[in-house]
Amino acid sequence: MTVTNLKQSINSERLLKRLQDLGRIGLDNDNKRTRLAASDADKAGRDRLIVWMKEDGLEVEIDRIGNIFGIWYSTENRNEEPILLGSHIDTVINAGMYDGCYGVLSGLEVINTLQKKGVKPSRPIAVAAFTNEEGVRYQPDMMGSLVYAGGLSVEDALKTVGSDGTLLGEELERIGYAGTKEPGFLKPYAYIELHIEQGPILDKEGISIGAVENLQGISWQRITIEGIANHAGTTPIVMRRDAGLAAARVITYLRDRANASNGQTVATVGTISFKPNAVNVVPSLATFTVDLRNPNEQRLQEEEQALANYLKELAASEEVSISSEQLARFSPVSFDENIVKLIEQAASKLELHSKRMTSGAGHDAQMMARICPSAMIFVPSIEGISHNPKEATNDSDLIAGANVLLDVVNNLAGNK
Amino acid sequence: MTVTNLKQSINSERLLKRLQDLGRIGLDNDNKRTRLAASDADKAGRDRLIVWMKEDGLEVEIDRIGNIFGIWYSTENRNEEPILLGSHIDTVINAGMYDGCYGVLSGLEVINTLQKKGVKPSRPIAVAAFTNEEGVRYQPDMMGSLVYAGGLSVEDALKTVGSDGTLLGEELERIGYAGTKEPGFLKPYAYIELHIEQGPILDKEGISIGAVENLQGISWQRITIEGIANHAGTTPIVMRRDAGLAAARVITYLRDRANASNGQTVATVGTISFKPNAVNVVPSLATFTVDLRNPNEQRLQEEEQALANYLKELAASEEVSISSEQLARFSPVSFDENIVKLIEQAASKLELHSKRMTSGAGHDAQMMARICPSAMIFVPSIEGISHNPKEATNDSDLIAGANVLLDVVNNLAGNK
Repeated sequence: MTVTNLKQSINSERLLKRLQDLGRIGLDNDNKRTRLAASDADKAGRDRLIVWMKEDGLEVEIDRIGNIFGIWYSTENRNEEPILLGSHIDTVINAGMYDGCYGVLSGLEVINTLQKKGVKPSRPIAVAAFTNEEGVRYQPDMMGSLVYAGGLSVEDALKTVGSDGTLLGEELERIGYAGTKEPGFLKPYAYIELHIEQGPILDKEGISIGAVENLQGISWQRITIEGIANHAGTTPIVMRRDAGLAAARVITYLRDRANASNGQTVATVGTISFKPNAVNVVPSLATFTVDLRNPNEQRLQEEEQALANYLKELAASEEVSISSEQLARFSPVSFDENIVKLIEQAASKLELHSKRMTSGAGHDAQMMARICPSAMIFVPSIEGISHNPKEATNDSDLIAGANVLLDVVNNLAGNK
Repeated sequence: MTVTNLKQSINSERLLKRLQDLGRIGLDNDNKRTRLAASDADKAGRDRLIVWMKEDGLEVEIDRIGNIFGIWYSTENRNEEPILLGSHIDTVINAGMYDGCYGVLSGLEVINTLQKKGVKPSRPIAVAAFTNEEGVRYQPDMMGSLVYAGGLSVEDALKTVGSDGTLLGEELERIGYAGTKEPGFLKPYAYIELHIEQGPILDKEGISIGAVENLQGISWQRITIEGIANHAGTTPIVMRRDAGLAAARVITYLRDRANASNGQTVATVGTISFKPNAVNVVPSLATFTVDLRNPNEQRLQEEEQALANYLKELAASEEVSISSEQLARFSPVSFDENIVKLIEQAASKLELHSKRMTSGAGHDAQMMARICPSAMIFVPSIEGISHNPKEATNDSDLIAGANVLLDVVNNLAGNK
């Protein structure tokens, strides 16, 4: 990797140091990092972020759902729609230090670099840290950006009861981040989110930059199969109504379809339970979840329909009854082709390998894409590990990603 | 069904009444029947049984593991090896009223009938109620007959710690059933156990009598598959090491082999768990049990070997690591061909349909077969239901089975 041919480049030392600094906030006695949304640790992270925003002369605004915005206005561009960069700084339990934070802090570096170089951008450039992206304490996840994009009313969101019985609205008040701005108060010209991949593809392929052109649609179902509990020794195979066997057939069916989809569909059965769950009793009940994803809405619907058809056949052939319940459903998101091209061009200028890719995980960008042209830049996650203290990205890749973001922003809102 | 051509026939009214009487012992306030081994309810059942044995003039003996024997001696046959009939009167939790009790109480009817008819048997005829056949409170199951047949020392058995923390030896003392006879003190000439099938075959086929020629061997294993936990959205299918998928492949493999075995092998996966057991995480760990049964030892070993080979292939193809642990292993038992033929002949004389069959469940007879010629007689379980308050057998079948037992005993030890 080389950035020597770049006229302007972000302050990599400061970026890496800030990632470390923010990463130390929320460590417990066992050195586990946890900053759940609207917790004391989240407040400490937010406070630090705002100090940094103010150091760079940004105007700080907080909206009613607690989203933080640091905005670099000039007198000339104050009435223009801003370029918005961002992500989130809340974490899962026992988290790594890059997920979300990398995008927010790189946004600050981009602004600082442009300021230092004397660039006079044609539009404001702002950095957002959205509330409760992770959805661990309050559901749904990506809540701050969902509310910001108008997909959930701020009143309903603030009434959310947490896994610990708290009310999100009260917790935001308590930590001092129940702002006054209406969500959506800034209408972005574009939204760009720089993020670690949280998957293995870039790392395995040795590519530094992912130009994320779309985000998978997600279909979550809970499937319940009812058979009949029978003695494992005395019941001939042909007389069984084995809910567990039927569940296993669904799992292998889903894998076979995913294999046949040429890398487009992913399907996961992550949870399962049998009843009565005894060694020598044929299961009368099997319950499991299905996580189906595809970047194309029509294909995702085809997968859902194929599964539904298979469940019908299976219910008949295994003489069991099967029901399914939709747990979550998000349509795929297509990102803005122009921004994706700018990302590829920026990588090319920096002599970085890039590839177009699909985001397998959900991100704030999928919500922001509802209200403005949006795209994402991915950098490699070593071995694809995320939501884990082992989450890691090489410094060179972190710097490369931030410089790609800088170039894209410069292109979109460069010198007037 | 007709028994009119029988010269002597058991007192069916008394048998059915005693089944009801014994069945009322151990009912709780919700009318659930539970007589766990060496519990107060078990003591009450034992006390009642001994009253009945004494009413019929039987000599009652208790051995050190609490097995109860009621023996009909005559002066002439006192030195002969006895014909032993029996089963058990302990129950599972929330049990039916026939499992075990039917064989014990029918044994008493057989003796009473022979006595009433003035038969002078060439050998003593005895009825045994073995301790802790069910194995719910103390493991292993079939403990009383296992100790009696020399498969487990009485000292070790008495030290067994129960699921409630009690010691079996202390509990037998407490309820007054720690006897003084050494297990094995009576060397039987033959052992015959009449039992409900606890499976659906006789009921489905409309056959009254099962002439049980063998008992399946049982192999229990716990299989643990280790893969890698990965994000369900960001991890391409080809990069997964999905422990749950591998578990599902084992389950369907076992079923396919069982289907191909022409009704000989049964295979059951009754328990399963995934870790971390989250909707959107590829399982890193899958643990499940396998219950494999076949009436032929060589075939059972072939099934075990086939599974082991498959697990090796699967570990390679799915890039997971797989370990297995033997939880239990019993070789198949072949019953005595002469007694099985006597059972068929008795059924035929009584104009009852009979079929040779395999016992899919474990019974005291499998232990007694170690020390004397043994066999079992099955009668239908309606819909195959057992270990459940819905356990049921038609009265006509209960009576038929006891009459078959009577005829077999009469043949083995008839008038001198």
